[in-house]
Amino acid sequence: MEIKDIHKNYKKLIGEVVEIAGWVKNNRNSTNVGFIDFNDGTGFKGVQLVYSSELKDYDKITHIHVGSALRVKGVVVESSGNQDFEIQVQSIVVEGDCPEDYPIQPKRHTREFLREQAYLRPRTNLFNAVFRVRSLASMAIHTFFQERGYVYVHTPLFTCADCEGSEQMFKVTTFDFDNLPKNEEGKVDFSKDLFGKQAFITGSGQLHGETFATAFSKIYTFGPTFRTENSNTKVHANEFWMIEPEIAFCDLDQLMDIEEEFLKFIIKYVLEHGKDEMEFLDSFVEKGLIEKLTKLLNSEFKRITHHDCITILKEANVEWQFKPEYGEDIAKEHEKYITEYFDGPVFITDWPRDIKSFYMKQSEDGKIVRAVDLEVPTVGELMGGSQREDDYEKLVKRIEELNLDRSNLEWYINLRKYGSCVHSGFGMGFERLVMYLTGIENIRDVIPYPRTPNNCEY
Amino acid sequence: MEIKDIHKNYKKLIGEVVEIAGWVKNNRNSTNVGFIDFNDGTGFKGVQLVYSSELKDYDKITHIHVGSALRVKGVVVESSGNQDFEIQVQSIVVEGDCPEDYPIQPKRHTREFLREQAYLRPRTNLFNAVFRVRSLASMAIHTFFQERGYVYVHTPLFTCADCEGSEQMFKVTTFDFDNLPKNEEGKVDFSKDLFGKQAFITGSGQLHGETFATAFSKIYTFGPTFRTENSNTKVHANEFWMIEPEIAFCDLDQLMDIEEEFLKFIIKYVLEHGKDEMEFLDSFVEKGLIEKLTKLLNSEFKRITHHDCITILKEANVEWQFKPEYGEDIAKEHEKYITEYFDGPVFITDWPRDIKSFYMKQSEDGKIVRAVDLEVPTVGELMGGSQREDDYEKLVKRIEELNLDRSNLEWYINLRKYGSCVHSGFGMGFERLVMYLTGIENIRDVIPYPRTPNNCEY
Repeated sequence: MEIKDIHKNYKKLIGEVVEIAGWVKNNRNSTNVGFIDFNDGTGFKGVQLVYSSELKDYDKITHIHVGSALRVKGVVVESSGNQDFEIQVQSIVVEGDCPEDYPIQPKRHTREFLREQAYLRPRTNLFNAVFRVRSLASMAIHTFFQERGYVYVHTPLFTCADCEGSEQMFKVTTFDFDNLPKNEEGKVDFSKDLFGKQAFITGSGQLHGETFATAFSKIYTFGPTFRTENSNTKVHANEFWMIEPEIAFCDLDQLMDIEEEFLKFIIKYVLEHGKDEMEFLDSFVEKGLIEKLTKLLNSEFKRITHHDCITILKEANVEWQFKPEYGEDIAKEHEKYITEYFDGPVFITDWPRDIKSFYMKQSEDGKIVRAVDLEVPTVGELMGGSQREDDYEKLVKRIEELNLDRSNLEWYINLRKYGSCVHSGFGMGFERLVMYLTGIENIRDVIPYPRTPNNCEY
Repeated sequence: MEIKDIHKNYKKLIGEVVEIAGWVKNNRNSTNVGFIDFNDGTGFKGVQLVYSSELKDYDKITHIHVGSALRVKGVVVESSGNQDFEIQVQSIVVEGDCPEDYPIQPKRHTREFLREQAYLRPRTNLFNAVFRVRSLASMAIHTFFQERGYVYVHTPLFTCADCEGSEQMFKVTTFDFDNLPKNEEGKVDFSKDLFGKQAFITGSGQLHGETFATAFSKIYTFGPTFRTENSNTKVHANEFWMIEPEIAFCDLDQLMDIEEEFLKFIIKYVLEHGKDEMEFLDSFVEKGLIEKLTKLLNSEFKRITHHDCITILKEANVEWQFKPEYGEDIAKEHEKYITEYFDGPVFITDWPRDIKSFYMKQSEDGKIVRAVDLEVPTVGELMGGSQREDDYEKLVKRIEELNLDRSNLEWYINLRKYGSCVHSGFGMGFERLVMYLTGIENIRDVIPYPRTPNNCEY
C-alpha cells in the first residue's frame, strides 16, 4: 500500500494491517520502544513506525540506519502524539541497508551541499516538495491547454536554419572533433555530417508553432530549450523548459486575457493538488508564499503601455541605477517598482520596435510593436508575448532591415501569403514559474540536474 | 465561436447567428448559390458555408481562393444535404487571401509531396488527424501517470558522461568549428567550452530517472531524445520523443501489469477523445484500425520467456530469413510471427544477458536478465523494460566486464549502496506508439518536422 493512500483513508484503516515499502528518514529508540520516520515518497507526508522491544529482532531494528529501504508490515493505530495515526510494526525486512556515511542525514543541509548531491537531494523534504510542485505545475499546464482544445505540438529541437542568430545556439555534430573533415577551402565540411549541413539546437519553437496555429487555431509547445549564455547568475541556466502557445484569430488584448487565466489556473491547481508541499514551502522557504499566490488569484492584472510605464518610472521619487527612458528597455529595478506601484501583476504593452524581435506586429508608423511582457511581483518578467506581424510586405522589410537570412525563413514568411490572419502567442520560462510557485531563489534548485557554465555534472 | 463548439451544440444553435473565423478548404458555386468548405482546425470536422447570390458581394465571394482566412457571420440552419447543419452566410470578411498557386488544393496529395510542404501539411485532413492524435496520446500519457501519483521528472538532455557510448550521441559545443582551441597535445581543448568539458546529448533519461524513483517511488519522463543512427528506414528518426517510467519496489511481473494497463489506457483515451480523427484514419489510412485497437483493449497480454519464444519459432513451419537461436536476439519476422501465433500482444521476458544492457537484473547464474520486450501486432516491439540490477557488487562487476567508464557512473552505482531496492522501468518510443494508433507507416509522417539523415529542413 502507498503511504499517500494510508493518509487519505487512515480513519477507515485504524486497526487494519498494512504492508508498505519505503526509506528510513530517522530511527530513534529507548529501552522499550523505537520510532522510525518513514516515507515512500508517494506523498509529502511520511508515517511514524513504532516498534516495541517485544519484537524478537528489536535490537536489530534499533540498528537500522537512516537511508535504508524497508518492507514493513504493521497495524494502523491512533497516534499518541500529534500525528493522525502511526504504524505499530509487526515485521520489518531490510531490502537495502545504508552505511553510516550516507550524505543525507536527519539534519538541515545547505542547498549548496545538496546541489553537489543532486542525485540524492530529491530524498530531502525541501527537494521532494520542489520537484513535486514542478511535476504538478507541468500537469496544470497540459490540463489548461487540453481542456481548452489546444493541440500540443512537439516542435523540433534540431535546426539547420540559424535565423535566430547562431551565436546563441549550441552546435551539434556527429564528427570526431580531433578528426574533422575539411573541404577544399580548408573549412569544416558539414556536407559530410549526418544532416548534410551544420546543425544547431534551437532556442525557441515559436516559428514552427505558428505554422501549426494556422492549421489548428490553438496550439502550445512544452519542451526543453537551450541557450549558450555564459551567465553565472541565480536565474540563468543553459538548459531549461519553455511553454509557447500560439493562437490564430487572436489579438494582443485577447492574448493578455489568456495569459492571465493561464497563470491563475496553474496557481490554483498547484495550491489544490500540492497542499502539503506548499505549506512546507510557506513555512521553510518563503514566508507568506501561499498568501502571495492567493492574492494574485484574486487580483485583476493591470495593463499599461511601455510609454506610460516609463512616465511612472520617471515621476517616481527613486534613485535609479539605470535611468528609465522612452524607447528603451526597462531594468530589473523598474520591473520591481512597477509591480509594487500597482501592487500586483502588470502587463506592459506596445514596446519600442527597435528593442524587440522581427516578427512582432508593427504600428502604422513602425515605431512600436504589439508586444507584451507580464511583470509579476517578486520575480519580474514571467511571460513575454506579442501579436505577430501578419503583413507580408512589412515582415519581409523588417527581415531585410535586420539583415536576417531570408532564405531560411521563406516558409515562415509564406504564412503571411497563404491565408494570413491576426495571431498572437507568448512564451513562459518554466523554471521561472516554478521559482515563483515555490519561493526558491536559485534556478539550480528547481531543475533536477541543472546545466550552467562549467557545470554539467551527472 | 469555435467550430468544434458549434458541432457540439448545433441543435440548440439552429436559427442563431454565429461568428466564426477559419480557412477555406474548397469554394464551389453555381449561378444562385455557393458553398465553402470551411474549418478553423479546432475540431476535425469543418462546416459548410452556404452563400446566396442575394448577398451584395456574391461575385467577390465566388472568387475567394482556397486557403484564404475569413471571418464569417451567418445563421446556423438545418442542412439540406447529409450534414448535421450548415451556415447560411450573412457576411464574409477576407482577413488574408491566398494565391491560386497555394500548394494545398482540395485534391489528394501524396504523402511524399506533403513532407516537402511540412509547414502546410497540418492543414490537410490527414495530418490534422495525425497531429491531433499525437497531442491526445501525449495527454493520455500524462493523465495516466499523474492520476496514479507518478512524478514527472525533466531529466537533463545535456550530459558530460558518455557512459552509454558516445558514438550514439550527438556532440554539442559553443565553439566555432573553424577556429577550435587546442591544448598542448594538439587536441581540441574542451576545458575552454561552456561546460568545461566535452558535452553530449543523452539518448535516455533512465539512469537519472532511477535516482528520482528512489525518492518518489514512482516517476516518469517524457521528452525528446536523440540518436545519431544513420538509418534511412521508415521507423528511424534522429530526433524523437520517449517516455520512461521508473518504479521502486516493483518487480518484472508488476512492471508488465503497469505496461499493459498503460497501453490500454492510452488507446481508450484516444478512441474516446479523437473519435472523428480515428474514424477518418480507419477509412483512409488503415482499414480496420479501430477494430484492431478495440481488440487489443479486450485482450489479455500473453507472457512468455525468450527461451520459450525461441522454441515456438524453431518449431514453426516457416522459412526464416534469420534462423531463431537460443541466446540470440529475435528479428522483425520473429516479432511478427509471435504476435500472430498468440493473436495479440506478447511480453517476452528473461533475455540472454549478453545481448542486453548492463543495468538489468541478472539471474543467479548470470546467464539471463530480467528484461521484457512488449511485442504488439503490426508494429512489433513497442516497449522495452527491465527489472534493474539492485545488487552493488553484481552491477560493478558487469560495468567492469563491459569496460564501461565507472567514474561517470559512481552516482548511479551508489543507488545500490544507499537503500537499494527492487525496482523496474520501461521505455516507449512515442512515435512508434503514434504510428500504431494512426496506422501511419512512415515515422516522418507522425513528427511535425522530422529529422533524419540528410534531412533537417525548416
